[in-house]
Amino acid sequence: MVLPSPLFLCLVLSPLTPCCCVQIFRVIKRINVRILFVLLLLGLGAIFYIGASTSPIIVFVFSVCIISFVLSMYLTKWVLAKDEGPPEMVEISDAIRDGAEGFFRTQYGTISKMAFLLAVIILSIYMFRSTTPQQESSGLGRSMSAYVTVVSFLLGALCSGIAGYVGMWVSVRANVRVSSAARRSAREALQIAVRAGGFSAMVVVGLAVIGVAVLYSTLYVWLEVDSPGSMKVTDLPLLLVGYGFGASFVALFAQLGGGIYTKAADVGADLVGKVEQGIPEDDPRNPAVIADLVGDNVGDCAARGADLFESIAAEIISAMILGGTMAQRCKIEDPSGFILFPLVVHSFDLVVSSVGILSIRSKRDAGAIGVVEDPMLILQKGYSVTIVLAVITFGLSTRWMLYTEQAPLAWLNFALCGLVGILTAYVFVWITKYYTDYKHEPVRTLALSSSTGHGTNIIAGISLGLESTALPVLVISVSVISAFWLGHTSGLVDEAGNSTGGLFGTAVATMGMLSTAAYVLTMDMFGPIADNAGGIVEMSQQPESVREITDVLDAVGNTTKATTKGFAIGSAALASFLLFSAYMDEVAAFAHVAFKQVDIAIPEVFVGGLLGSMLIFLFSAWACSAVGRTAQEVVNEVRRQFIERPGIMDYKEKPDYGRCVSIVASASLREMIKPGALAIVSPIVVGLVFRIVGYYTGHPLLGAKVVAAMLMFATVSGILMALFLNTAGGAWDNAKKYIETGALGGKGSDCHKAAVTGDTVGDPFKDTAGPSLHVLIKMLATITLVMAPVFL
Amino acid sequence: MVLPSPLFLCLVLSPLTPCCCVQIFRVIKRINVRILFVLLLLGLGAIFYIGASTSPIIVFVFSVCIISFVLSMYLTKWVLAKDEGPPEMVEISDAIRDGAEGFFRTQYGTISKMAFLLAVIILSIYMFRSTTPQQESSGLGRSMSAYVTVVSFLLGALCSGIAGYVGMWVSVRANVRVSSAARRSAREALQIAVRAGGFSAMVVVGLAVIGVAVLYSTLYVWLEVDSPGSMKVTDLPLLLVGYGFGASFVALFAQLGGGIYTKAADVGADLVGKVEQGIPEDDPRNPAVIADLVGDNVGDCAARGADLFESIAAEIISAMILGGTMAQRCKIEDPSGFILFPLVVHSFDLVVSSVGILSIRSKRDAGAIGVVEDPMLILQKGYSVTIVLAVITFGLSTRWMLYTEQAPLAWLNFALCGLVGILTAYVFVWITKYYTDYKHEPVRTLALSSSTGHGTNIIAGISLGLESTALPVLVISVSVISAFWLGHTSGLVDEAGNSTGGLFGTAVATMGMLSTAAYVLTMDMFGPIADNAGGIVEMSQQPESVREITDVLDAVGNTTKATTKGFAIGSAALASFLLFSAYMDEVAAFAHVAFKQVDIAIPEVFVGGLLGSMLIFLFSAWACSAVGRTAQEVVNEVRRQFIERPGIMDYKEKPDYGRCVSIVASASLREMIKPGALAIVSPIVVGLVFRIVGYYTGHPLLGAKVVAAMLMFATVSGILMALFLNTAGGAWDNAKKYIETGALGGKGSDCHKAAVTGDTVGDPFKDTAGPSLHVLIKMLATITLVMAPVFL
Repeated sequence: MVLPSPLFLCLVLSPLTPCCCVQIFRVIKRINVRILFVLLLLGLGAIFYIGASTSPIIVFVFSVCIISFVLSMYLTKWVLAKDEGPPEMVEISDAIRDGAEGFFRTQYGTISKMAFLLAVIILSIYMFRSTTPQQESSGLGRSMSAYVTVVSFLLGALCSGIAGYVGMWVSVRANVRVSSAARRSAREALQIAVRAGGFSAMVVVGLAVIGVAVLYSTLYVWLEVDSPGSMKVTDLPLLLVGYGFGASFVALFAQLGGGIYTKAADVGADLVGKVEQGIPEDDPRNPAVIADLVGDNVGDCAARGADLFESIAAEIISAMILGGTMAQRCKIEDPSGFILFPLVVHSFDLVVSSVGILSIRSKRDAGAIGVVEDPMLILQKGYSVTIVLAVITFGLSTRWMLYTEQAPLAWLNFALCGLVGILTAYVFVWITKYYTDYKHEPVRTLALSSSTGHGTNIIAGISLGLESTALPVLVISVSVISAFWLGHTSGLVDEAGNSTGGLFGTAVATMGMLSTAAYVLTMDMFGPIADNAGGIVEMSQQPESVREITDVLDAVGNTTKATTKGFAIGSAALASFLLFSAYMDEVAAFAHVAFKQVDIAIPEVFVGGLLGSMLIFLFSAWACSAVGRTAQEVVNEVRRQFIERPGIMDYKEKPDYGRCVSIVASASLREMIKPGALAIVSPIVVGLVFRIVGYYTGHPLLGAKVVAAMLMFATVSGILMALFLNTAGGAWDNAKKYIETGALGGKGSDCHKAAVTGDTVGDPFKDTAGPSLHVLIKMLATITLVMAPVFL
Repeated sequence: MVLPSPLFLCLVLSPLTPCCCVQIFRVIKRINVRILFVLLLLGLGAIFYIGASTSPIIVFVFSVCIISFVLSMYLTKWVLAKDEGPPEMVEISDAIRDGAEGFFRTQYGTISKMAFLLAVIILSIYMFRSTTPQQESSGLGRSMSAYVTVVSFLLGALCSGIAGYVGMWVSVRANVRVSSAARRSAREALQIAVRAGGFSAMVVVGLAVIGVAVLYSTLYVWLEVDSPGSMKVTDLPLLLVGYGFGASFVALFAQLGGGIYTKAADVGADLVGKVEQGIPEDDPRNPAVIADLVGDNVGDCAARGADLFESIAAEIISAMILGGTMAQRCKIEDPSGFILFPLVVHSFDLVVSSVGILSIRSKRDAGAIGVVEDPMLILQKGYSVTIVLAVITFGLSTRWMLYTEQAPLAWLNFALCGLVGILTAYVFVWITKYYTDYKHEPVRTLALSSSTGHGTNIIAGISLGLESTALPVLVISVSVISAFWLGHTSGLVDEAGNSTGGLFGTAVATMGMLSTAAYVLTMDMFGPIADNAGGIVEMSQQPESVREITDVLDAVGNTTKATTKGFAIGSAALASFLLFSAYMDEVAAFAHVAFKQVDIAIPEVFVGGLLGSMLIFLFSAWACSAVGRTAQEVVNEVRRQFIERPGIMDYKEKPDYGRCVSIVASASLREMIKPGALAIVSPIVVGLVFRIVGYYTGHPLLGAKVVAAMLMFATVSGILMALFLNTAGGAWDNAKKYIETGALGGKGSDCHKAAVTGDTVGDPFKDTAGPSLHVLIKMLATITLVMAPVFL
């Protein structure tokens, strides 16, 4: 086997990382269709050949993914076939597209440079690291494991970038089509938005699954796994960690940059436009309006695509690692079922979610303008279809994959674990809805507290957010323990007769929670597309009735966005716990000693915990203040334009949208570095420092222990902080919306002004800091896994 | 030895708990002076006799405490000899005193009822608990340990109540004298406020020291400790835990009730008075103004007295426990030096702080009105004197108490630990000042962000608060580790040759941090007295020049208050870590197995951590929302009075101050129950539930482990949350003050309005939730220590 030079590999792959997804798309577009087709067939053939050499399960996974890619192409075709409306709409849509693609290019350029740097660092660390006994015995030497890790890191980063680009690509095209359709029928507009969201959801989930599957089977074939003298298949998943780290790395910066961009533009535009000048939202006279609409695409679509790609990838890999470890301990004859289970669950996820998405169709008789059905009901009907199917397919896949003669009834316990996960997801969505929907008590109380002023509104919102952490934590607690217990009593035992299925039970519950991920992601993507469509309608000055339709869709989008965040945090909590166990196993393997306990009664370990929690606080602080600072730059620019071009207010002069776009873009690129670097550098520094302290105080493994405590405390604080930020932000937003429905004095009253303040404060909470935190948690887990050799 | 019936004991002692300190004071006042003197002498004689039978160190401690009580009486006499000013001042002061004493009576009535209930619960638990082997071998049976725990719990509660009452007693008398003196000279006003603060500081610290010393020596004599066949002296400190728990219990409710009272009245008065009616702060036309002034006394003086009493008591006891454990492990011949060290440190604290307080005197030549020296400088000069003396006496006491022939240089290491503590306190004060003083960057940036509106002000304040957690955490980390390391290398080793001094080193650092506690408390108490004096000056409509003097004093008081909070959190962080170790030791003793590790990789333990952090979030939420709700009641009442008595605004009608006072009082009593009960009930419930889960899943000690994780995660989250809340609140307050100096548009500008919103939000942060959290952390630690048998 000839090994390519590691540096060469880096150099070849790194420019391919996210920045160049755009280029790749362009190159593909230019190639002759027939050649492309042949190339595609060849590629598919190769993939299937490798898959078939690995396991029939992989062939099944490949087939489902490819079918769902075909389906998603159909969805795109269907969406793109819709008309783009009148030229004024197209003009606005073009400006948004240019802004979004421009920012995406620069942002991912920066990210790919950092990824390249990190790849070199990882490579050099791995060249000096010690290898595990398993790896040594299987002939997987130092340099080989270095290449594998670096290549999978870069591949993860690349795929995460593509996922983000796909999310944005479709949303900047679908938005104008939704606006145009809204002139005809609410149902049609809804359908376009859902199908566009469905397209990116299918691509994101499919990409995560196929990426892991290709990497897994390539390594399987290349390293001749399971042949005598080679690596065992149960050790293979640990090599995939680099992929998860790459995905998390890109997702963190995508979420930070996009989140800062979107909220700075939003807050800045609102502060001058709404508050100072008194013009409505998305008014074409506001110079920051295009930046705001671009923000929806780069923040909500591109970032959320990368983010959910990362979630799914990280959770698949952690479950595969645990499945492998357990199968090895129980000496299960064919462990591939346990290892590949997550891939199968997500393949079924693609199938059932497609059914759910396609179940939302135009009714022929309800096409007239004005007949606005509640879109939430339609979406929920689709969700119910998906969930029922998911329960059935989940049961089938546990029977298919997790049946073993050693414990014939174990699969039934694991099916119940999956049910626990599905229920957890359902309850999470319900709790989020309870705290953020104005149909319920909490948001109404919050709205009422606005009537006594800005101050009481903020106090009430913060209390609401802090309080809203309690129920989700109780739910996570119950589901972690019950899934662990179901797994523990599954009958799977190791050689010594100890039950070993507990952790895998938790992993299966996580899979259950994510078994409808594609549909949930569709609902999530639907929101920003509707929001953008509304902006285009407002800017192109369409009649009120059209705006009403997009407003309804936008409001539904807000609710679905909030619930997806609860979903993301819940699954992140479970996944981090799994990755933590994987970290402990890895340290034990490297250090050749048992590493089962992290003793928080040791002062250094306690300090590690303190530092971990502090990291969360500091990260949130920097993310929020970045938005504040950037928004102030926007405010100053918008104020300047209003002064220098007095004709703007009478539609006599056109504002300079481009300047605002470029100011926000460069500021958010600058601002995303500090919190992002903090997240990456601090676990490495803490691990290294305490490794040195441990060396001088005669305390072995101190670095690894301190990092473990840091990871655990950061996870717990991160979950709570994210819940707090997301819920408080969502509740403020909806309290404002509730008042805008006419309650407590309605629009323009003092009460409304106080509620707008709350909404502004909530913006960076719920769209910048909050959704970055769950990515941060998982990135901490993967970074410690990848960097473990540094701390030993 | 005849044992009194436990129930009888409860019944006798519980009505004595806090509620009745007022009664006791009254009864004492009525007794003939000569009889009182004879009784006092008899009591003193008994105390000294017991002390002398225990250890000469105790005699020293008693002597210092009694001298400082005499000194504090001199200070009171000096303060009370000052004139109370014109009748209009006396009238207002009387109203404040009545309101404060009325609230104190009802509040402590409620608290003492709860304390009684808890005492019965503790008693019944202890009657069914198992005893430790040491206790059994020393003849300390089940019922005896039950009585000891319950009696020390009630004694701790009683002393904590007295400490609170003393703080309030002097402040409601000193306030009017400061106002009156402000008509003559700034320096005299300052001196009265400082000496009044000094009085309560000396009493609070002295009470904490003498309470522990009396309890210790009584138990020593009663249980015939160290005589053959009895208990060993090194086990004695663990029996004092009940005292700490009693103190924390009262302090938590005092802080909650007082904090809700003061901030609800403040926010309510400001919202209608300042914002709606545009009348100045403390204007006599505002119906809530007396309630606001009463709040300063019950919130800042009474609650802070109980709070700091609790801090000192808890930290003394935890250090004594660790000293005892270490002395036992090292087989030190005379362990009393290590055990009694904290009492000696605090005795010296009383001495050096008195010198510091007395160093602040009236200059004969600077008596004229208008010559306002910077009072901060005067206070800091006194602080420097105190700190220099503290370093010297700390060195002396380590040499005196901690010298042992086994490790002749150990005392030097411990002296360095003390220095680490003193430095930590100093750096903490500096960091708090940096983040909350408007001379520095952060508050100026915050003020600037107010210029773009309410929303950006809040975002910037929250970011500032979150960011401000980083440096203190780094400082705590460095000091914990370096003190541990200094202790570890002190040369003290156990029989097997292992170093054992590490934890005691951390304890000594905590003592070092608190070695100037009495002076710090004086500076802290000074603030609310000055604030109140300002209110009386404003209400009695004195000339502007008088108000200027009290304003300057008030501003200084704000800064000293903020720094004391940093100090309290820092020492709480160290103390909880110590109490955590004590908990582990106790569980090991009860369970007869080693309990050295809390393994956060077990799902249940992870869940315990999640629940612990969640407890902090939920507690903060409830504390903040309690203020919000109560403030809304005040707003409604004040609005009602303005409508029903239209003459108020023209001074034609008098507002009904009493109604506001009673509304706030009853609301804050109602609101303090929920968060307080949460703090007490949740660790017990979690411990019990997981004990049962552990029983059914065959997992021994699960309850104890989960509670340990809960405690540790709650401590870490609590430290961070408290730092966040205190700093953000202080920064908002001072950003407003900075703008009021004329910057960025000055008073009345839009920028100022945004800053006022921030200040309102900061009020419950910094005066209700924030300062309750460090009490909560310690109460969790002591409750788990006392309730440990329930979890096993």
